Amino acid sequence: MNTFSWPVRVYYEDTDAGGVVYYANYLRFLERARTEYLRSLGFEQDSLRAQEGLGFVVKHVDIDYRSPARFNEQLQVDAKITAVGRSSITFSQQVLRSDTCLASATVVVVCLDLEQFRLRSIPPFIREAFQRVS
Amino acid sequence: MNTFSWPVRVYYEDTDAGGVVYYANYLRFLERARTEYLRSLGFEQDSLRAQEGLGFVVKHVDIDYRSPARFNEQLQVDAKITAVGRSSITFSQQVLRSDTCLASATVVVVCLDLEQFRLRSIPPFIREAFQRVS
Amino acid sequence: MNTFSWPVRVYYEDTDAGGVVYYANYLRFLERARTEYLRSLGFEQDSLRAQEGLGFVVKHVDIDYRSPARFNEQLQVDAKITAVGRSSITFSQQVLRSDTCLASATVVVVCLDLEQFRLRSIPPFIREAFQRVS
Amino acid sequence: MNTFSWPVRVYYEDTDAGGVVYYANYLRFLERARTEYLRSLGFEQDSLRAQEGLGFVVKHVDIDYRSPARFNEQLQVDAKITAVGRSSITFSQQVLRSDTCLASATVVVVCLDLEQFRLRSIPPFIREAFQRVS
Repeated sequence: MNTFSWPVRVYYEDTDAGGVVYYANYLRFLERARTEYLRSLGFEQDSLRAQEGLGFVVKHVDIDYRSPARFNEQLQVDAKITAVGRSSITFSQQVLRSDTCLASATVVVVCLDLEQFRLRSIPPFIREAFQRVS
Repeated sequence: MNTFSWPVRVYYEDTDAGGVVYYANYLRFLERARTEYLRSLGFEQDSLRAQEGLGFVVKHVDIDYRSPARFNEQLQVDAKITAVGRSSITFSQQVLRSDTCLASATVVVVCLDLEQFRLRSIPPFIREAFQRVS
Repeated sequence: MNTFSWPVRVYYEDTDAGGVVYYANYLRFLERARTEYLRSLGFEQDSLRAQEGLGFVVKHVDIDYRSPARFNEQLQVDAKITAVGRSSITFSQQVLRSDTCLASATVVVVCLDLEQFRLRSIPPFIREAFQRVS
Repeated sequence: MNTFSWPVRVYYEDTDAGGVVYYANYLRFLERARTEYLRSLGFEQDSLRAQEGLGFVVKHVDIDYRSPARFNEQLQVDAKITAVGRSSITFSQQVLRSDTCLASATVVVVCLDLEQFRLRSIPPFIREAFQRVS
């Protein structure tokens, strides 16, 4: 429960000459799911930036590639919030094709004051929304 | 004469499942050569932005794909300035493998006031440098 | 009529430090719409490749950038087939935000025998489908 | 000692609307350095593929983002082999700007039979070259 899912189609742009999705592009897929998860909770990142001067930036990624995704496949990208800190959020994420997990990752994002590119606390109205789904 | 050349190596990131360089990525190669051409003329785009508030943005691309580039190949990207207008510069560019032209393009960039994202005249000290090599 | 439309959301991956969608990435958006257009006509490119040994490869792009797309915007990418030749298809495409055209392009794709990377005729069952919507 | 270094220039293509290098693109930089490291040891990946039917594929990445890289900066990407297994190689990598470490990563690549996309032993002539520098 409390896992958000987002569909991703594999286009030529995502693949490489090995015939599979290029390893860096899984990180693009993972971010699309996190972005849409935030949107589903009511947070638009351009508004957060304009109104609060804050942004979420990736601090750490640990990703395990289990099985390749290929051109034209329909994938599902899952995101689950597993921890909410003072200024960090930890996501557990998976890239799936049907029931097969192709890649699993832990992603830590931190809340930054974008003017100074410095850590700041996650505002309470955001933290509470994250805690409700974690 | 007055053609600037920049070497580009093809990595997996540049290719797609067709085994060749993905068509959009030629535009990345073309821009690397234009950026290095500007640098060779003494212009650093981050300084132009910070000091003059200006940037060069692509307005038009016409590109013909003749023959595919493949993983691991060493390419050469050429750039030649063929016209300098009040606020635009036209480049004639080629992507080559040895003497074989793989793609040829015409690229028009325009000078923008980056605050307002509006056209502005190219400053004389830049225009003169471009005219010297065109 | 006979214009196919595909929605595209702008993520951070699509933008550059100028704050707008990177110029090469419009070509990725254009291809997503063409791919989904083919799919809507009943053609899956991985099946065409496996069963017919054929693929569609971009031969020419002429693109005009009119107004920038920005992070988090919801775009619409249109594709319309304007000509069907013996081995080529010409698309007229637009990237739109609401009713504003941000970029317009003409894209020529050609049908290749993927074994030999050589031009071949478009098979009649595909040509007929294209002609019905052009 | 035995650390391989490769220069990388940050172009617009590498950055995002946050004004910094997009997080997935560090993985592209890391791979360029690994590819050039293999090349410096005498191994061309297209030849290995054609002659031995083998390729190196990323199995695991653990990356820590410490400080952002920005447009136009000149970076250095380091790669060091820290372990050589039967079919895996572990790299310790860093992305640096002068003496500042911007990102550090551990990357595990595995040797695959590319026909079957299955693990295979690293051939002795490659393993020995890796062990000499690890």
